[in-house]
Amino acid sequence: MARVLDIAKRVHDHTWKLDPIVRSLLDTDFYKLMMLQMIWKMHRNVDVTFSLINRKPEIRLADEIDVNELRAQLDHARTVRLSKKERIWLAGNTFYGRRQIFDPEFLAWFEDFRLPDYELAERDGQFELHFHGPWTDATMWEIPALAIINELRSRAAMRGMGPFELDVLYARAKAKMWEKVEMLKRLQGLRISDFGTRRRHSFLWQRWCVQALAEGIPGAFTGTSNVLLAMDNDLEAVGTNAHELPMVYAALAETDAGIRQANYRVLEDWNKLYGGNLLIVLPDTFGTAAFLRDAPDWVADWTGFRPDSAPSIEGGERIMAWWREHGQDPREKILIFSDGLEVDTIVRTFHHFEGRVRMAFGWGTNLTNDFVDCAPQKNDQLRAISLVCKVTEANGLPAVKLSDNPNKATGDPSEIERYIRLFGTEERVKQAVVV
Amino acid sequence: MARVLDIAKRVHDHTWKLDPIVRSLLDTDFYKLMMLQMIWKMHRNVDVTFSLINRKPEIRLADEIDVNELRAQLDHARTVRLSKKERIWLAGNTFYGRRQIFDPEFLAWFEDFRLPDYELAERDGQFELHFHGPWTDATMWEIPALAIINELRSRAAMRGMGPFELDVLYARAKAKMWEKVEMLKRLQGLRISDFGTRRRHSFLWQRWCVQALAEGIPGAFTGTSNVLLAMDNDLEAVGTNAHELPMVYAALAETDAGIRQANYRVLEDWNKLYGGNLLIVLPDTFGTAAFLRDAPDWVADWTGFRPDSAPSIEGGERIMAWWREHGQDPREKILIFSDGLEVDTIVRTFHHFEGRVRMAFGWGTNLTNDFVDCAPQKNDQLRAISLVCKVTEANGLPAVKLSDNPNKATGDPSEIERYIRLFGTEERVKQAVVV
Repeated sequence: MARVLDIAKRVHDHTWKLDPIVRSLLDTDFYKLMMLQMIWKMHRNVDVTFSLINRKPEIRLADEIDVNELRAQLDHARTVRLSKKERIWLAGNTFYGRRQIFDPEFLAWFEDFRLPDYELAERDGQFELHFHGPWTDATMWEIPALAIINELRSRAAMRGMGPFELDVLYARAKAKMWEKVEMLKRLQGLRISDFGTRRRHSFLWQRWCVQALAEGIPGAFTGTSNVLLAMDNDLEAVGTNAHELPMVYAALAETDAGIRQANYRVLEDWNKLYGGNLLIVLPDTFGTAAFLRDAPDWVADWTGFRPDSAPSIEGGERIMAWWREHGQDPREKILIFSDGLEVDTIVRTFHHFEGRVRMAFGWGTNLTNDFVDCAPQKNDQLRAISLVCKVTEANGLPAVKLSDNPNKATGDPSEIERYIRLFGTEERVKQAVVV
Repeated sequence: MARVLDIAKRVHDHTWKLDPIVRSLLDTDFYKLMMLQMIWKMHRNVDVTFSLINRKPEIRLADEIDVNELRAQLDHARTVRLSKKERIWLAGNTFYGRRQIFDPEFLAWFEDFRLPDYELAERDGQFELHFHGPWTDATMWEIPALAIINELRSRAAMRGMGPFELDVLYARAKAKMWEKVEMLKRLQGLRISDFGTRRRHSFLWQRWCVQALAEGIPGAFTGTSNVLLAMDNDLEAVGTNAHELPMVYAALAETDAGIRQANYRVLEDWNKLYGGNLLIVLPDTFGTAAFLRDAPDWVADWTGFRPDSAPSIEGGERIMAWWREHGQDPREKILIFSDGLEVDTIVRTFHHFEGRVRMAFGWGTNLTNDFVDCAPQKNDQLRAISLVCKVTEANGLPAVKLSDNPNKATGDPSEIERYIRLFGTEERVKQAVVV
C-alpha cells in the first residue's frame, strides 16, 4: 500500500534556513504590554539598558549555543510587526473585566513598533547581550530574548537525539506534566495561571502545557501571561507589573528620599492608569520588609500583593499580618504566588492559606520547562537555568534590585550597598535560586 | 504565517470507509508459518474448527464492538494475499540461522493462500466466531482474528476521547513502556523477544513497542514473533510451535494410547522437518508432569522447553530437575518463558535462573497492551482481556487442551474429564489467568 507523503513539506523541511522562535510581538508576557502603555504615556523620554544576566555562570551558554544562530533569531524577532488581527484583538478584547484597556493612540503607535537593535558579544563562554534605547523599546526585548536563548539551548540539547529518543523524551515530559495536573485537580478552589513564557523549553511545549491545564483543570486554570497563547486559545491574558518599574523610578530619583519613595510613586502612577483587579502590589524590589514598613496607608486598600522572592508561606503570612495591622480582612484580599513554584509548593501553600486569604498561583519554569529525567540518556542541558534580562541603567544612572533573596539581587555592587543602607536588610534571607 | 495543510490527506481521512487492521498475511506469529508448512506437508487432509473463546465472559465483547465493523475487518483480511516482496523475503531470509527453511513448493502454494470464510453470530453479548476448513486454512485465522478483535475493542474504548486525551494516553503509555525498558536494561545477558501480536492494543502500538525494545535494549532484544514487523525492521522472526499440534494429533488418535503418545508424535514429526534451535518442546498441552513422566529419553536431547502455563520458577525448576535426571546439563539447555510475563516476573525469573540455565523470554500482552492507568479518565475498556482462538475439532472429533493451569483448559467438559483420566492431575494448579 503506497504511503502518501507530503513532498512539499519534506522539501521545505530540509531546505529551510530558520525555524523562528518568536513569530509575534504578542509572544510576550501580558504585563509587558500593561507596563509598556504606562511607560509610553508617562516616560517616553527615558532611555534604558536591559542586560542578560546568567545567575549560574558555570553554565557556559556561549559554548552551548551557536552565536550565529542566536543572531539569526534575534534578527528575525526584529522583523516581526503587530498584525492587523492582533491589533484588533488588543482593541476589542476584555482584559481583567475591562474593555478598551489599551488606548487607541497607544495601539496606533504599537502597530509600527519593532524591537530595537541589540549588542551581542561572547566573553568567557558567556553572552554579553544588551538592549539600549527608549524604555518603550528596550523593555520589549526582555521576554523574547529569554525565550529565544532558552529555546536555542533546548534545541542544542536535543541536536544529537534520534526520532525515537525525542519521542520518548516528549512522552515522558507529557506524562510528567499530566501527573502534576492530576495532583492539582484535587485542590478545590485553586486558581492558577501560566507564567512560563520566558523560561519555556520551547513555544510549542508551552502551548502544550497551557492546553494540558485548560483540559485538565478548566475551572482552576485562570489564564496565561502569554498574550499570543491567550489570543489563540481564547484564554484570559494575565499579569500586572514587574520590578523594572520601581527599579527605573529609583534610578531616576537619584536622591535617597526619592529612591525610598520610588515603589509608592509607581503604585500612584499605576493607579492613575489602571484600577480594580489590576491593583496588585509587587513589594519585594527593595525588600518586602522595607516596603511594608514605609508604605502609606492607602497601599492597604489595594486588591492584593504578589510576593515574588520570599518563601511563599512566610512571605504570605508577613503580608497578611500587615493587612490586619491596617484593619484589612485578608479574606477580601488576594496573594499571587509566582516564585519558583513546583506542584509540591503549590499544594503546601494552598492548604496553608486555604480559607484565610484569596490566592492565585502564577506557575512559571516548572510548568513550561520541566524535562528532568525525561531524556532516555541523561541530559543536563535540558535542565532549566536561571537566566534573567534586567534593566541595568536608566538615563545613564544605575538601576538596582535587592529582592527578598540576596541571590536574586542585580546591579552594581556599590549601588547595591547604597540601596541596602537605604532599605535595610531586615528579613532578607539567602535562598538558592532554582529557576 | 499560512500553515501548509495536506488537503488530500485530510479529505482521505474523512472519507475513508475502513482503516484495515490486518494488511498482510505476514502480520501473524512466525510459529504459525512453521506449523503451517508442517501441516501442509503432513496433514493436508485434516479439517479443523478454530473457535473464539473469551475467558472472561463478564466482558460483553459484542456490546463493546460493533458486529458490522468486525465483519468488515474480517472480510478485509480475507482479501489480503502474500505480496511478491513478502514471498521473496520468506524464500531468501535466514530463520534461526537456516537458509530456505520454507520449501519452494510450500511458498508457491502460500502465494495463492487466502483466509477461509468464517461463521459469526452474536449471543448473550458475546461473539460466536468459528473458522472451519482444512487445517492449513483455518489455523491461519487465529492471530489475525484475535488482533482484529483486540484492536476493535481499543478503538471502541477510545472513540469518545478528544485529541488531547489521546495525546496524554499515548504519552503515558510510552513513558510506562520506557520505564520497563529501563528496568530490563539492568539485566546483563537478558534475551527477550516480542510475542504480543495477538493481544496487542493496535498494530501501530505493537510496532512502537518493538521499536522501543530495539532502541533501548538492542543487545537483549532477540526479535519479534510478528513476521511482518520482523521483515520491515530487519529483526529476527521467532517462535516454534503451539498447542494446536498435540491437540489435533490427540483428537485424531482417538484411542487412549494414541492420545497419550500425541505429544511425542508431534515432536517426531517436527524433528523430521526442522532441527537445531528449533527443537523446543512445548510440554504443557496435557500437563507438564504427565509429559515428563511419559516422555521417551530422546526428548531430553532437545534444545529446550517452553513452559507456558506453570509459574515460571516452579515450572523451570521442574524441567531442570528432569534434565538432570536424564543426565543433561541445564546450562546447555534453554528455557523459554512466555506465560503472562510482566517486568517484575521477568526480573525475578531472570535472577532466579541466572547462570544455571540458558533462558529467553517471550513477552506478550503486557508488552503490547498495557494501558492501565494511562487514560486521563478511568477507562476499563483499555485493559487487555483474556481472549483466545483455539482448535476445537479435528475431522469432527473434539480437541482438548488441559494446560498446567486448569483455568486455561479448553474443550468439551466430558472430553476434558477423559483427558484428565488419561494424563492425571499431578502438579496442575489453578491460577488466575491475567492475560
